Amino acid sequence: MNKQLLRAAALPLFALIAPDAAPAQNADRTERLRDAALEDDEVAYDIVEGLTTEIGPRLAGTAQEARAREWGVRKLKSLGFSNVHIETYQMPVWVRGEERAEIVAPFPQRLAVTALGNSGATPAAGLDAEVVGFDSLADLEAAPAAAVRGKIVFVSHGMTATQDGSQYGYYGAARRTGPSVASRKGAAAIVIRSIGTDHHRNPHTGVQIWSEGVSPIPAGALSVPDAEQLQRILKRGKKVTMRLTLTPRNIGMQEGGNVVAEVPGTDAKAGIVLIGGHLDSWDLGTGAIDNAAGVAITAAAAKRIMDAGRPRRTIRVVWFGAEEVGGNGDQAYRAAHGKEKIVFVSESDFGADRVWRMDPGFAPVNAALADRVAAALAPLGIARSTQAASGGADLGEWVQTGVAAIDLQQDGTRYFDYHHTPDDTLDKVDPEQLRQNVAAWTAMLSVVANAPEEIVPTKPAVPAP
Amino acid sequence: MNKQLLRAAALPLFALIAPDAAPAQNADRTERLRDAALEDDEVAYDIVEGLTTEIGPRLAGTAQEARAREWGVRKLKSLGFSNVHIETYQMPVWVRGEERAEIVAPFPQRLAVTALGNSGATPAAGLDAEVVGFDSLADLEAAPAAAVRGKIVFVSHGMTATQDGSQYGYYGAARRTGPSVASRKGAAAIVIRSIGTDHHRNPHTGVQIWSEGVSPIPAGALSVPDAEQLQRILKRGKKVTMRLTLTPRNIGMQEGGNVVAEVPGTDAKAGIVLIGGHLDSWDLGTGAIDNAAGVAITAAAAKRIMDAGRPRRTIRVVWFGAEEVGGNGDQAYRAAHGKEKIVFVSESDFGADRVWRMDPGFAPVNAALADRVAAALAPLGIARSTQAASGGADLGEWVQTGVAAIDLQQDGTRYFDYHHTPDDTLDKVDPEQLRQNVAAWTAMLSVVANAPEEIVPTKPAVPAP
Repeated sequence: MNKQLLRAAALPLFALIAPDAAPAQNADRTERLRDAALEDDEVAYDIVEGLTTEIGPRLAGTAQEARAREWGVRKLKSLGFSNVHIETYQMPVWVRGEERAEIVAPFPQRLAVTALGNSGATPAAGLDAEVVGFDSLADLEAAPAAAVRGKIVFVSHGMTATQDGSQYGYYGAARRTGPSVASRKGAAAIVIRSIGTDHHRNPHTGVQIWSEGVSPIPAGALSVPDAEQLQRILKRGKKVTMRLTLTPRNIGMQEGGNVVAEVPGTDAKAGIVLIGGHLDSWDLGTGAIDNAAGVAITAAAAKRIMDAGRPRRTIRVVWFGAEEVGGNGDQAYRAAHGKEKIVFVSESDFGADRVWRMDPGFAPVNAALADRVAAALAPLGIARSTQAASGGADLGEWVQTGVAAIDLQQDGTRYFDYHHTPDDTLDKVDPEQLRQNVAAWTAMLSVVANAPEEIVPTKPAVPAP
Repeated sequence: MNKQLLRAAALPLFALIAPDAAPAQNADRTERLRDAALEDDEVAYDIVEGLTTEIGPRLAGTAQEARAREWGVRKLKSLGFSNVHIETYQMPVWVRGEERAEIVAPFPQRLAVTALGNSGATPAAGLDAEVVGFDSLADLEAAPAAAVRGKIVFVSHGMTATQDGSQYGYYGAARRTGPSVASRKGAAAIVIRSIGTDHHRNPHTGVQIWSEGVSPIPAGALSVPDAEQLQRILKRGKKVTMRLTLTPRNIGMQEGGNVVAEVPGTDAKAGIVLIGGHLDSWDLGTGAIDNAAGVAITAAAAKRIMDAGRPRRTIRVVWFGAEEVGGNGDQAYRAAHGKEKIVFVSESDFGADRVWRMDPGFAPVNAALADRVAAALAPLGIARSTQAASGGADLGEWVQTGVAAIDLQQDGTRYFDYHHTPDDTLDKVDPEQLRQNVAAWTAMLSVVANAPEEIVPTKPAVPAP
């Protein structure tokens, strides 16, 4: 108690109003709301089902994403949200063309390939070149340009599944920077082993951005079984020739947009709780786990708070329009709203499997608030970690500039089986685990949006962009 | 003992030579050979790895299958088999073209589709038509032609996984006869839910033969997630239009061939033990479980018998060249060899997972032989069933005409996840279960090929074709 009072002493007057009574009262309500969500939520599944069925793939900046925005507005209005609208912006758009890879010699056969985002194009009839294999990105980086020039580079290192998805950072580098490294050394093209943990012949796409001054080359990913096949073929020691056909193209600046909805609060001075996820998806699947689930979970939880009576803080739900291809959605949003009083952010973008860990991101004076969220989440099997919240791809910049946050970490064991593949479809969503997500988000929002104390920045204010 | 003597009394003199001593001696050797295979067999995996890597897909009657035959001859010779050769025949060949399906309205999006064997072709730019859905083949059969005419028929009934794969018979009818039923009613095309148990966006192809007098129409299979998607779309109650592009073609008569190898026996009069599986595969995957595993298991077991010393009966291993597309390989083989003294047949063609059941197919006088095989298999976790051996797709006709047989039934729980899809690749083969197969086959061959008694037909002799 002393410790809590000590912290409270550092807070402005407002935070001292019934620092224990109100949270205790709210805790009961939080518990009821949480357990009801776990029991019967159908809103989240309905959103995932509707978005994946009625829209399907929705690459940012395309007609499909525009349809998804209109769909989102209709859905959020029908759920009763306020101030539902679209905020548009312009963005460059790259679209997929034909995709084909085949071993020409010594063992003719097709391999399953897909272009990585921003890949250059081969001639329409394909590009024939010798394949040179590297076990890792480090090996490619260490190779002399002479070993690579004019060849199709193949990087075969592969990630394994972990609950926290942490291998994506390390192995994902082959996708993010491998193409630029290969281009710099004069490679004709690059194919990488998919950054994925499955063994199905569905390659994993994903964005890569060319380093400054680097010329785009064709850049693709082979499915994991095909990458293993190519490794076996190379191991035979004969010269391996591949014909690679990738004909994507840039279609210039197009319109994209964020969908915004609100649950109005009672206390405008208490600041805004900003939550959401990205509405766009890669073009290969219907984006069920990446990220219909995220927009569904955040909206379903916000609706539960809304239906329980007006919260103290306004909850703003943003479905960001362009995360997969480079963050144009969140950049536009930050540019337009960076100066508003956003006091807390949280994002859902790691599938539909259960939340297992809470990473808090509060200033020390808000420790009691973090404790109350942790207490509300524990019965759902969610442990508090010592890792700080990062905010995710769409809200990370807010966190970096000092806005309080929580990351509700989802079980990622299966996530990279489907991530960015044609297999990201509705059947991969487990309704029971989806409900647990809604319950966790409902509990978190109930505590945070109604917190009687001030939610303060984690670091001194930095001017918004 | 009385019972056994009673049976023996009905047998010719030969069978009475040491009816107990020789089997007992052989039982020890069988046990040793079986356990050694379980412990250390690498031949089978080497064959599966080599065939899937160095050849890959091998559609019957194509250059890939021709390469597979040459590969097979080299491999079987290098393993030490005798009389290794190819027996060719002519067969009609159908090859896949472009494949694309998309919902045009009300929810534009692509669906994953593949043509069924012998499918007709759409125009190159595709065929647009309204989709009419049926929950089952029976519903399609019951529908008036007016409900189907000019439309794309969709049959959505789906199979579930079972250890014995028995649902394939029932649900497979949608593939085998659905296209003919749809064509008869004037459908523009048909797409079925894949006959498969997975949830990946890899459609399952498979053969279908047009009924007499029926005009071919485009006939495809949607992957299971896509079939479920189309069901959800239809359920919305709006008119659904699909653009279907399938451009396969018939390329006329081509050469196919069976690969034959032998382990010579000591007693030509005792007849031939004919075993094998099919070497061809569908064109989408590398045919690891269907059926590199089957040719590998049978050859690896035969080699183990060969290496242990000459068996009494010649073991003939046939890798049939054309099973998937209609049985041209076994028909050619029966036509050429139907009059030889084949006394026992057994086929492996249900993947690479463990054998769990033995279906015997012997005349009553060979009951003791069946007992000895059952005893040799039991320690591998294989139970004897009361179901009679059928012989499989390539050897079934021998069984129907009265040749003794055993079916070593494999665990099919996973089989229809990969069957006839791009996902039938090496990584689906579990080396440990593959070794159990080789052990089971080695044990069976050790008993049968060395059986001192005569192996008699199960029914009166029927003239061979």
